[in-house]
Amino acid sequence: MPHHAHPVNAFTWPVRVYWEDTDAGGIVYYANYLKFCERARTEWLRARGIHQQALAQSTGCMFVVTDAQVHYQRSARLDDLLHVHTALIETGRSALRIAQHIHLASDEAPLLCRATLRAAWVRAADARAQRIPAHILQALA
Amino acid sequence: MPHHAHPVNAFTWPVRVYWEDTDAGGIVYYANYLKFCERARTEWLRARGIHQQALAQSTGCMFVVTDAQVHYQRSARLDDLLHVHTALIETGRSALRIAQHIHLASDEAPLLCRATLRAAWVRAADARAQRIPAHILQALA
Amino acid sequence: MPHHAHPVNAFTWPVRVYWEDTDAGGIVYYANYLKFCERARTEWLRARGIHQQALAQSTGCMFVVTDAQVHYQRSARLDDLLHVHTALIETGRSALRIAQHIHLASDEAPLLCRATLRAAWVRAADARAQRIPAHILQALA
Amino acid sequence: MPHHAHPVNAFTWPVRVYWEDTDAGGIVYYANYLKFCERARTEWLRARGIHQQALAQSTGCMFVVTDAQVHYQRSARLDDLLHVHTALIETGRSALRIAQHIHLASDEAPLLCRATLRAAWVRAADARAQRIPAHILQALA
Repeated sequence: MPHHAHPVNAFTWPVRVYWEDTDAGGIVYYANYLKFCERARTEWLRARGIHQQALAQSTGCMFVVTDAQVHYQRSARLDDLLHVHTALIETGRSALRIAQHIHLASDEAPLLCRATLRAAWVRAADARAQRIPAHILQALA
Repeated sequence: MPHHAHPVNAFTWPVRVYWEDTDAGGIVYYANYLKFCERARTEWLRARGIHQQALAQSTGCMFVVTDAQVHYQRSARLDDLLHVHTALIETGRSALRIAQHIHLASDEAPLLCRATLRAAWVRAADARAQRIPAHILQALA
Repeated sequence: MPHHAHPVNAFTWPVRVYWEDTDAGGIVYYANYLKFCERARTEWLRARGIHQQALAQSTGCMFVVTDAQVHYQRSARLDDLLHVHTALIETGRSALRIAQHIHLASDEAPLLCRATLRAAWVRAADARAQRIPAHILQALA
Repeated sequence: MPHHAHPVNAFTWPVRVYWEDTDAGGIVYYANYLKFCERARTEWLRARGIHQQALAQSTGCMFVVTDAQVHYQRSARLDDLLHVHTALIETGRSALRIAQHIHLASDEAPLLCRATLRAAWVRAADARAQRIPAHILQALA
């Protein structure tokens, strides 16, 4: 079941589901999985020495998601502990392609959600794509 | 430019960008476009006489997004007025496929974001897909 | 019961409750009433010709909430239509005090939530309080 | 400055600031501090063996905030690590009063935000206040 497996060499970040994340259907609101993915991408970058706030100040640039494909397979609920797996799947001149899988942090670890995202490195002032700095690419390699 | 055109026979819903929608990049946070899409889908249903809270109580079922593809083309900013266009593109036994385009509500109306979503009709208790009730399909036809 | 009455000369802004606003308790999440209040304050300012994004760019300043007192009396639910009443209750050199009441938009219009907030006019760069520009005070008078 | 000190015998929970928490002012959006407080209250309860999702299912009841007073002193920014201190300050028949202080997790640990909240134990079905179960009071004592 290749697409059930979490990405090879993935970075794993835990996320707890709080009241703020749920909706009146009793489950996590669908847009909030993208928040979980973004927290995990931020920690994946931080673990490689890439601090976005500092980078934004020194370079005037930031990563911006330009495409997201999300497949929701099963819902998380209040108090659930989740694992977000993050892996780089492609590196371009000005963009990265990233796979993220969210599983329940239980023994069987069922898959809740799979996302594939493209993050472009853009200048904050005008949103123009820029060449990703070499030190970022090296840190991610 | 077919993919710039908003969906044929689309329902249009206005959304204003507030502080809550933006992030420190000065733009709307990427997950929040899915909130705007959901508001527009809710109003599209409401305009066809479909009230989700009442339906959930009477049928025990609700629409749940199972797939989302989002293409971000340009960012919205604080105080922007947006138009979310919503159109049904496919009707299945237990799911709908919906196209949504978000444009800036200005003269040129540039496209900000395009989304295609699959919404399944599921039983809230166990998340099992159910046949969409005939009166819903008729209202959407 | 004076404190149940909505503020005198109040500006009224409608807010619809969507899935994003609710939590697994079936009601609007408590922090989200502050989002509704902020939307209403933004529209109250806009109705008086005060556009915050443009002001931030021209003055480098913005209103920041420094104190909030919120009394939750009754919960809103999915699909509810609310009315947020906003009134200026005190004007200082560098801050405003604002009362906001949220009611259900029904015949009896029960009170859901009352908030009193202090909004200070600060320089974005260093968060220092500044004298509120005269044209803003005149617009609010 | 007693009100700068964090609550005596407080439970401390770390919160990292992500893009989702910030707004176009470059700082954490004011309502989101209430999310941080709620996460910390949930973990404070969990550390005492109180699991809200399980309790809601077994008792049909939940804690609902009825009053919140928030004093914002200084703003958090992207990537900041915060400490939320939580302490019980009063126990009533059907409600708790809780103090929460949010500090920057740095050497000087400046105070960002102080909140005092009243949380009532209510029946989810009709929002009526109920007597807090003895085992919860014992766990919190």
